[in-house]
Amino acid sequence: MLSPHYASCIQACSACAIACETCAAACLAEPDLQMMRACIQLDRDCADMCRLAEALMLRNSPLAEEFCRLCAKACQACAEECAKHAHDHCQQCAQACQRCAGECLAMAA
Amino acid sequence: MLSPHYASCIQACSACAIACETCAAACLAEPDLQMMRACIQLDRDCADMCRLAEALMLRNSPLAEEFCRLCAKACQACAEECAKHAHDHCQQCAQACQRCAGECLAMAA
Amino acid sequence: MLSPHYASCIQACSACAIACETCAAACLAEPDLQMMRACIQLDRDCADMCRLAEALMLRNSPLAEEFCRLCAKACQACAEECAKHAHDHCQQCAQACQRCAGECLAMAA
Amino acid sequence: MLSPHYASCIQACSACAIACETCAAACLAEPDLQMMRACIQLDRDCADMCRLAEALMLRNSPLAEEFCRLCAKACQACAEECAKHAHDHCQQCAQACQRCAGECLAMAA
Repeated sequence: MLSPHYASCIQACSACAIACETCAAACLAEPDLQMMRACIQLDRDCADMCRLAEALMLRNSPLAEEFCRLCAKACQACAEECAKHAHDHCQQCAQACQRCAGECLAMAA
Repeated sequence: MLSPHYASCIQACSACAIACETCAAACLAEPDLQMMRACIQLDRDCADMCRLAEALMLRNSPLAEEFCRLCAKACQACAEECAKHAHDHCQQCAQACQRCAGECLAMAA
Repeated sequence: MLSPHYASCIQACSACAIACETCAAACLAEPDLQMMRACIQLDRDCADMCRLAEALMLRNSPLAEEFCRLCAKACQACAEECAKHAHDHCQQCAQACQRCAGECLAMAA
Repeated sequence: MLSPHYASCIQACSACAIACETCAAACLAEPDLQMMRACIQLDRDCADMCRLAEALMLRNSPLAEEFCRLCAKACQACAEECAKHAHDHCQQCAQACQRCAGECLAMAA
Protein backbone atom coordinates (compact mmCIF):
# COMPACT_ATOMS: atom_id res chain seq x y z
CA MET A 1 0.00 0.00 0.00
CA LEU A 2 2.97 2.33 0.60
CA SER A 3 4.58 4.41 -2.09
CA PRO A 4 7.71 2.43 -3.06
CA HIS A 5 9.78 5.63 -3.02
CA TYR A 6 9.03 6.25 0.64
CA ALA A 7 8.24 2.81 2.02
CA SER A 8 11.53 2.06 3.73
CA CYS A 9 11.74 5.54 5.26
CA ILE A 10 8.15 5.27 6.54
CA GLN A 11 8.96 1.95 8.17
CA ALA A 12 12.12 3.37 9.74
CA CYS A 13 10.23 6.38 11.12
CA SER A 14 7.52 4.14 12.56
CA ALA A 15 10.08 1.88 14.24
CA CYS A 16 12.05 4.87 15.51
CA ALA A 17 8.96 6.52 17.06
CA ILE A 18 8.19 3.25 18.86
CA ALA A 19 11.78 2.92 20.10
CA CYS A 20 11.84 6.54 21.31
CA GLU A 21 8.51 6.29 23.15
CA THR A 22 9.64 3.04 24.75
CA CYS A 23 13.00 4.53 25.73
CA ALA A 24 11.45 7.71 27.20
CA ALA A 25 9.03 5.71 29.34
CA ALA A 26 11.78 3.32 30.48
CA CYS A 27 14.20 6.18 31.23
CA LEU A 28 11.56 7.81 33.41
CA ALA A 29 11.51 4.62 35.53
CA GLU A 30 15.31 4.22 35.85
CA PRO A 31 17.00 4.58 39.27
CA ASP A 32 19.66 6.85 37.69
CA LEU A 33 17.03 9.28 36.51
CA GLN A 34 19.29 12.34 36.88
CA MET A 35 21.49 11.06 34.06
CA MET A 36 18.55 10.46 31.75
CA ARG A 37 17.24 14.03 31.45
CA ALA A 38 18.69 14.71 28.01
CA CYS A 39 17.70 11.26 26.82
CA ILE A 40 14.06 11.76 27.79
CA GLN A 41 13.95 15.19 26.16
CA LEU A 42 15.53 14.02 22.91
CA ASP A 43 13.40 10.86 22.83
CA ARG A 44 10.24 12.95 23.02
CA ASP A 45 11.25 15.32 20.24
CA CYS A 46 12.45 12.47 18.05
CA ALA A 47 9.27 10.41 18.56
CA ASP A 48 7.10 13.38 17.61
CA MET A 49 9.25 14.27 14.61
CA CYS A 50 9.21 10.68 13.33
CA ARG A 51 5.43 10.41 13.68
CA LEU A 52 4.91 13.59 11.68
CA ALA A 53 7.52 12.58 9.10
CA GLU A 54 5.62 9.32 8.65
CA ALA A 55 2.30 11.13 8.22
CA LEU A 56 3.71 13.67 5.74
CA MET A 57 5.21 10.91 3.60
CA LEU A 58 1.96 8.93 3.66
CA ARG A 59 0.15 12.08 2.48
CA ASN A 60 2.74 12.80 -0.23
CA SER A 61 3.11 16.22 1.32
CA PRO A 62 5.21 18.73 -0.61
CA LEU A 63 7.03 19.31 2.71
CA ALA A 64 7.96 15.66 3.19
CA GLU A 65 11.51 15.80 1.87
CA GLU A 66 12.53 18.93 3.72
CA PHE A 67 10.85 17.62 6.86
CA CYS A 68 12.82 14.38 6.65
CA ARG A 69 16.07 16.35 6.43
CA LEU A 70 15.20 17.96 9.77
CA CYS A 71 13.94 14.68 11.19
CA ALA A 72 17.36 13.18 10.45
CA LYS A 73 18.89 15.79 12.76
CA ALA A 74 16.47 14.88 15.54
CA CYS A 75 17.31 11.20 15.06
CA GLN A 76 21.04 11.87 15.00
CA ALA A 77 20.92 13.91 18.22
CA CYS A 78 18.86 11.24 19.95
CA ALA A 79 21.13 8.44 18.69
CA GLU A 80 24.21 10.19 20.07
CA GLU A 81 22.67 10.70 23.50
CA CYS A 82 21.17 7.21 23.75
CA ALA A 83 24.45 5.60 22.71
CA LYS A 84 26.06 6.98 25.89
CA HIS A 85 23.82 4.86 28.13
CA ALA A 86 24.15 1.12 28.71
CA HIS A 87 20.44 0.45 29.26
CA ASP A 88 19.02 -1.94 26.69
CA HIS A 89 16.24 0.50 25.78
CA CYS A 90 18.83 3.21 25.11
CA GLN A 91 21.02 0.97 22.98
CA GLN A 92 18.02 -0.25 20.98
CA CYS A 93 16.79 3.29 20.59
CA ALA A 94 20.20 4.48 19.41
CA GLN A 95 20.14 1.82 16.70
CA ALA A 96 16.60 2.69 15.57
CA CYS A 97 17.51 6.40 15.48
CA GLN A 98 20.72 5.77 13.56
CA ARG A 99 18.88 3.72 10.97
CA CYS A 100 16.09 6.27 10.70
CA ALA A 101 18.55 9.14 10.28
CA GLY A 102 20.09 7.30 7.35
CA GLU A 103 16.70 6.60 5.75
CA CYS A 104 15.58 10.21 6.19
CA LEU A 105 18.78 11.56 4.63
CA ALA A 106 18.50 9.15 1.70
CA MET A 107 14.87 10.06 1.21
CA ALA A 108 15.61 13.80 1.26
CA ALA A 109 18.61 13.56 -1.06
CA MET B 1 11.24 -4.32 23.02
CA LEU B 2 7.45 -4.10 23.32
CA SER B 3 5.52 -5.21 26.37
CA PRO B 4 4.19 -8.67 25.47
CA HIS B 5 0.78 -7.78 26.84
CA TYR B 6 0.35 -4.90 24.42
CA ALA B 7 2.57 -5.86 21.50
CA SER B 8 -0.07 -7.12 19.08
CA CYS B 9 -2.37 -4.19 19.79
CA ILE B 10 0.47 -1.70 19.28
CA GLN B 11 1.28 -3.30 15.93
CA ALA B 12 -2.38 -3.21 14.91
CA CYS B 13 -2.68 0.47 15.85
CA SER B 14 0.47 1.34 13.95
CA ALA B 15 -0.74 -0.49 10.84
CA CYS B 16 -4.20 1.06 11.15
CA ALA B 17 -2.83 4.60 11.41
CA ILE B 18 -0.78 4.00 8.26
CA ALA B 19 -3.81 2.58 6.41
CA CYS B 20 -6.01 5.50 7.48
CA GLU B 21 -3.47 8.17 6.48
CA THR B 22 -2.98 6.43 3.14
CA CYS B 23 -6.73 6.14 2.58
CA ALA B 24 -7.43 9.77 3.49
CA ALA B 25 -4.76 11.03 1.10
CA ALA B 26 -5.96 8.73 -1.68
CA CYS B 27 -9.64 9.65 -1.11
CA LEU B 28 -8.71 13.31 -1.45
CA ALA B 29 -7.38 12.56 -4.94
CA GLU B 30 -10.34 10.46 -6.14
CA PRO B 31 -12.58 11.69 -8.99
CA ASP B 32 -15.70 10.80 -6.96
CA LEU B 33 -14.60 13.08 -4.12
CA GLN B 34 -18.17 13.98 -3.12
CA MET B 35 -18.77 10.41 -1.98
CA MET B 36 -15.59 10.30 0.09
CA ARG B 37 -16.37 13.06 2.60
CA ALA B 38 -17.27 10.76 5.47
CA CYS B 39 -14.40 8.44 4.65
CA ILE B 40 -11.84 11.26 4.82
CA GLN B 41 -13.28 12.54 8.10
CA LEU B 42 -13.35 9.11 9.76
CA ASP B 43 -9.89 8.24 8.42
CA ARG B 44 -8.44 11.34 10.04
CA ASP B 45 -10.02 10.69 13.42
CA CYS B 46 -9.07 7.03 13.34
CA ALA B 47 -5.46 7.73 12.36
CA ASP B 48 -5.07 10.22 15.21
CA MET B 49 -6.76 7.91 17.72
CA CYS B 50 -4.56 4.96 16.72
CA ARG B 51 -1.37 7.01 16.98
CA LEU B 52 -2.27 8.15 20.48
CA ALA B 53 -3.40 4.65 21.51
CA GLU B 54 -0.02 3.38 20.38
CA ALA B 55 1.84 6.05 22.36
CA LEU B 56 -0.20 5.47 25.52
CA MET B 57 0.44 1.72 25.40
CA LEU B 58 4.17 2.25 24.81
CA ARG B 59 4.19 4.52 27.88
CA ASN B 60 2.19 2.06 29.99
CA SER B 61 -0.25 4.88 30.62
CA PRO B 62 -2.97 4.22 33.22
CA LEU B 63 -5.38 5.48 30.53
CA ALA B 64 -4.29 2.98 27.91
CA GLU B 65 -7.06 0.44 28.38
CA GLU B 66 -9.92 2.90 28.49
CA PHE B 67 -8.42 4.75 25.55
CA CYS B 68 -8.26 1.55 23.51
CA ARG B 69 -11.93 0.92 24.20
CA LEU B 70 -12.72 4.29 22.59
CA CYS B 71 -10.19 3.72 19.83
CA ALA B 72 -12.08 0.53 18.93
CA LYS B 73 -15.17 2.66 18.27
CA ALA B 74 -13.21 4.96 15.97
CA CYS B 75 -11.85 1.93 14.12
CA GLN B 76 -15.27 0.32 13.84
CA ALA B 77 -16.87 3.49 12.44
CA CYS B 78 -14.06 3.91 9.93
CA ALA B 79 -14.21 0.23 8.92
CA GLU B 80 -17.93 0.47 8.24
CA GLU B 81 -17.58 3.55 6.05
CA CYS B 82 -14.51 2.31 4.16
CA ALA B 83 -16.17 -1.05 3.47
CA LYS B 84 -18.81 0.78 1.39
CA HIS B 85 -16.25 1.93 -1.19
CA ALA B 86 -14.64 -0.26 -3.84
CA HIS B 87 -11.33 1.62 -3.95
CA ASP B 88 -8.40 -0.59 -2.98
CA HIS B 89 -7.24 1.90 -0.36
CA CYS B 90 -10.70 1.84 1.24
CA GLN B 91 -10.90 -1.95 1.27
CA GLN B 92 -7.41 -2.25 2.73
CA CYS B 93 -8.22 0.43 5.31
CA ALA B 94 -11.44 -1.36 6.27
CA GLN B 95 -9.45 -4.51 6.95
CA ALA B 96 -6.81 -2.72 9.01
CA CYS B 97 -9.53 -0.92 11.01
CA GLN B 98 -11.45 -4.14 11.61
CA ARG B 99 -8.36 -5.90 12.85
CA CYS B 100 -7.37 -2.96 15.05
CA ALA B 101 -10.87 -2.72 16.55
CA GLY B 102 -10.59 -6.37 17.57
CA GLU B 103 -7.13 -5.91 19.09
CA CYS B 104 -8.22 -2.80 20.98
CA LEU B 105 -11.28 -4.54 22.41
CA ALA B 106 -9.22 -7.58 23.44
CA MET B 107 -6.61 -5.34 25.03
CA ALA B 108 -9.24 -3.36 26.99
CA ALA B 109 -11.13 -6.46 28.15
CA MET C 1 -14.70 31.03 14.14
CA LEU C 2 -15.26 28.38 16.82
CA SER C 3 -18.51 26.52 17.27
CA PRO C 4 -20.21 28.29 20.20
CA HIS C 5 -21.13 24.95 21.72
CA TYR C 6 -17.50 23.89 22.01
CA ALA C 7 -15.61 27.18 22.15
CA SER C 8 -14.93 27.33 25.87
CA CYS C 9 -13.89 23.68 26.02
CA ILE C 10 -11.56 24.12 23.04
CA GLN C 11 -9.92 27.09 24.73
CA ALA C 12 -9.56 25.15 27.99
CA CYS C 13 -7.97 22.18 26.18
CA SER C 14 -5.57 24.46 24.34
CA ALA C 15 -4.52 26.19 27.57
CA CYS C 16 -4.21 22.86 29.38
CA ALA C 17 -1.99 21.35 26.69
CA ILE C 18 0.29 24.39 26.93
CA ALA C 19 0.41 24.17 30.74
CA CYS C 20 1.17 20.43 30.64
CA GLU C 21 3.95 20.76 28.05
CA THR C 22 5.45 23.62 30.05
CA CYS C 23 5.20 21.66 33.30
CA ALA C 24 6.74 18.50 31.82
CA ALA C 25 9.69 20.41 30.43
CA ALA C 26 10.18 22.31 33.69
CA CYS C 27 9.86 19.14 35.81
CA LEU C 28 12.57 17.52 33.71
CA ALA C 29 14.91 20.36 34.71
CA GLU C 30 14.11 20.31 38.45
CA PRO C 31 16.78 19.32 41.01
CA ASP C 32 14.26 17.02 42.76
CA LEU C 33 13.70 15.06 39.57
CA GLN C 34 13.03 11.77 41.40
CA MET C 35 9.83 13.19 42.84
CA MET C 36 8.59 14.42 39.48
CA ARG C 37 8.35 11.05 37.67
CA ALA C 38 4.57 10.74 37.93
CA CYS C 39 4.10 14.42 37.14
CA ILE C 40 6.09 14.16 33.91
CA GLN C 41 4.22 11.03 32.84
CA LEU C 42 0.78 12.46 33.55
CA ASP C 43 1.69 15.81 31.95
CA ARG C 44 2.62 14.03 28.74
CA ASP C 45 -0.57 12.00 28.56
CA CYS C 46 -2.72 14.99 29.44
CA ALA C 47 -1.06 17.27 26.87
CA ASP C 48 -1.59 14.69 24.13
CA MET C 49 -5.19 14.02 25.18
CA CYS C 50 -6.02 17.74 25.25
CA ARG C 51 -4.51 18.35 21.83
CA LEU C 52 -6.56 15.54 20.31
CA ALA C 53 -9.71 16.63 22.17
CA GLU C 54 -9.23 20.08 20.69
CA ALA C 55 -8.79 18.71 17.17
CA LEU C 56 -11.83 16.42 17.43
CA MET C 57 -14.03 19.29 18.61
CA LEU C 58 -12.77 21.56 15.83
CA ARG C 59 -13.66 18.79 13.34
CA ASN C 60 -17.07 18.20 14.90
CA SER C 61 -16.08 14.57 15.23
CA PRO C 62 -18.81 12.14 16.30
CA LEU C 63 -16.28 10.95 18.91
CA ALA C 64 -15.75 14.39 20.44
CA GLU C 65 -18.08 14.04 23.39
CA GLU C 66 -16.97 10.61 24.47
CA PHE C 67 -13.37 11.64 23.97
CA CYS C 68 -13.84 14.66 26.22
CA ARG C 69 -15.22 12.43 28.95
CA LEU C 70 -11.96 10.44 28.88
CA CYS C 71 -9.90 13.62 28.56
CA ALA C 72 -11.49 14.85 31.79
CA LYS C 73 -10.03 11.80 33.54
CA ALA C 74 -6.57 12.55 32.18
CA CYS C 75 -6.91 16.16 33.35
CA GLN C 76 -8.15 15.12 36.79
CA ALA C 77 -5.29 12.67 37.32
CA CYS C 78 -2.74 15.27 36.23
CA ALA C 79 -4.34 17.97 38.41
CA GLU C 80 -4.16 15.74 41.49
CA GLU C 81 -0.49 14.92 40.96
CA CYS C 82 0.55 18.47 40.09
CA ALA C 83 -1.26 19.87 43.13
CA LYS C 84 1.13 17.89 45.37
CA HIS C 85 4.16 19.89 44.20
CA ALA C 86 4.98 23.47 45.20
CA HIS C 87 6.69 24.42 41.94
CA ASP C 88 4.93 27.30 40.18
CA HIS C 89 4.67 25.31 36.95
CA CYS C 90 2.97 22.46 38.83
CA GLN C 91 0.52 24.74 40.58
CA GLN C 92 -0.34 26.53 37.35
CA CYS C 93 -0.70 23.21 35.55
CA ALA C 94 -2.98 21.87 38.31
CA GLN C 95 -5.26 24.87 37.82
CA ALA C 96 -5.34 24.53 34.02
CA CYS C 97 -6.07 20.79 34.34
CA GLN C 98 -8.81 21.36 36.91
CA ARG C 99 -10.48 23.93 34.71
CA CYS C 100 -10.15 21.74 31.61
CA ALA C 101 -11.59 18.72 33.43
CA GLY C 102 -14.65 20.79 34.29
CA GLU C 103 -15.07 22.05 30.72
CA CYS C 104 -14.67 18.55 29.28
CA LEU C 105 -17.25 17.10 31.66
CA ALA C 106 -19.71 19.92 30.90
CA MET C 107 -19.16 19.46 27.18
CA ALA C 108 -19.73 15.70 27.37
CA ALA C 109 -22.82 15.98 29.58
CA MET D 1 4.09 30.96 32.09
CA LEU D 2 5.51 31.11 28.54
CA SER D 3 9.10 31.97 27.75
CA PRO D 4 8.99 35.66 26.70
CA HIS D 5 11.25 34.90 23.74
CA TYR D 6 8.77 32.45 22.25
CA ALA D 7 5.41 33.57 23.65
CA SER D 8 4.06 35.43 20.63
CA CYS D 9 5.15 32.67 18.23
CA ILE D 10 3.55 30.01 20.44
CA GLN D 11 0.30 31.95 20.46
CA ALA D 12 0.42 32.38 16.69
CA CYS D 13 1.05 28.66 16.16
CA SER D 14 -1.82 27.75 18.47
CA ALA D 15 -4.21 30.11 16.67
CA CYS D 16 -3.01 28.89 13.27
CA ALA D 17 -3.54 25.22 14.16
CA ILE D 18 -7.09 26.04 15.26
CA ALA D 19 -7.78 28.00 12.06
CA CYS D 20 -6.38 25.21 9.88
CA GLU D 21 -8.37 22.46 11.62
CA THR D 22 -11.51 24.58 11.36
CA CYS D 23 -10.88 25.33 7.69
CA ALA D 24 -10.16 21.69 6.79
CA ALA D 25 -13.38 20.51 8.44
CA ALA D 26 -15.41 23.28 6.82
CA CYS D 27 -13.84 22.69 3.38
CA LEU D 28 -14.80 19.03 3.63
CA ALA D 29 -18.44 20.12 3.99
CA GLU D 30 -18.45 22.65 1.11
CA PRO D 31 -20.58 22.04 -2.00
CA ASP D 32 -17.61 22.95 -4.23
CA LEU D 33 -15.50 20.22 -2.69
CA GLN D 34 -13.55 19.54 -5.89
CA MET D 35 -11.94 22.97 -5.64
CA MET D 36 -10.94 22.48 -2.01
CA ARG D 37 -8.61 19.48 -2.41
CA ALA D 38 -5.38 21.46 -2.11
CA CYS D 39 -6.80 23.56 0.69
CA ILE D 40 -7.70 20.49 2.78
CA GLN D 41 -4.28 18.93 2.21
CA LEU D 42 -2.35 22.08 3.08
CA ASP D 43 -4.58 22.78 6.09
CA ARG D 44 -3.81 19.35 7.51
CA ASP D 45 -0.06 19.67 7.09
CA CYS D 46 -0.06 23.20 8.47
CA ALA D 47 -2.15 22.28 11.52
CA ASP D 48 0.17 19.39 12.36
CA MET D 49 3.29 21.50 11.81
CA CYS D 50 1.97 24.31 14.01
CA ARG D 51 1.05 21.93 16.82
CA LEU D 52 4.53 20.40 16.82
CA ALA D 53 6.19 23.83 16.54
CA GLU D 54 4.22 24.90 19.59
CA ALA D 55 5.26 21.80 21.56
CA LEU D 56 8.94 22.13 20.61
CA MET D 57 9.00 25.77 21.71
CA LEU D 58 7.26 24.94 24.99
CA ARG D 59 9.93 22.27 25.59
CA ASN D 60 12.80 24.62 24.64
CA SER D 61 13.83 22.00 22.13
CA PRO D 62 17.19 22.56 20.41
CA LEU D 63 15.27 21.93 17.16
CA ALA D 64 12.69 24.66 17.78
CA GLU D 65 14.24 27.39 15.66
CA GLU D 66 14.97 25.26 12.65
CA PHE D 67 11.54 23.67 12.95
CA CYS D 68 9.89 27.10 12.94
CA ARG D 69 11.72 28.00 9.75
CA LEU D 70 10.10 24.98 8.07
CA CYS D 71 6.77 25.67 9.75
CA ALA D 72 6.81 29.12 8.14
CA LYS D 73 6.92 27.44 4.74
CA ALA D 74 3.91 25.29 5.61
CA CYS D 75 2.04 28.40 6.77
CA GLN D 76 2.99 30.37 3.68
CA ALA D 77 1.84 27.60 1.33
CA CYS D 78 -1.44 27.25 3.19
CA ALA D 79 -1.98 31.03 3.27
CA GLU D 80 -1.51 31.27 -0.49
CA GLU D 81 -4.00 28.49 -1.20
CA CYS D 82 -6.60 29.68 1.30
CA ALA D 83 -6.41 33.24 -0.01
CA LYS D 84 -7.75 32.00 -3.38
CA HIS D 85 -11.09 30.96 -1.85
CA ALA D 86 -13.86 33.32 -0.79
CA HIS D 87 -15.18 31.16 2.06
CA ASP D 88 -14.93 32.90 5.43
CA HIS D 89 -13.06 29.96 6.94
CA CYS D 90 -10.49 30.15 4.14
CA GLN D 91 -10.02 33.90 4.47
CA GLN D 92 -9.66 33.63 8.25
CA CYS D 93 -7.25 30.73 7.86
CA ALA D 94 -5.17 32.68 5.33
CA GLN D 95 -4.81 35.50 7.84
CA ALA D 96 -3.85 33.17 10.71
CA CYS D 97 -1.31 31.41 8.47
CA GLN D 98 0.17 34.68 7.26
CA ARG D 99 0.60 35.93 10.79
CA CYS D 100 2.07 32.63 11.95
CA ALA D 101 4.53 32.54 9.05
CA GLY D 102 5.78 35.97 10.12
CA GLU D 103 6.11 34.94 13.77
CA CYS D 104 7.93 31.72 12.86
CA LEU D 105 10.39 33.55 10.62
CA ALA D 106 11.03 36.20 13.28
CA MET D 107 11.53 33.51 15.91
CA ALA D 108 13.96 31.56 13.72
CA ALA D 109 15.96 34.64 12.67
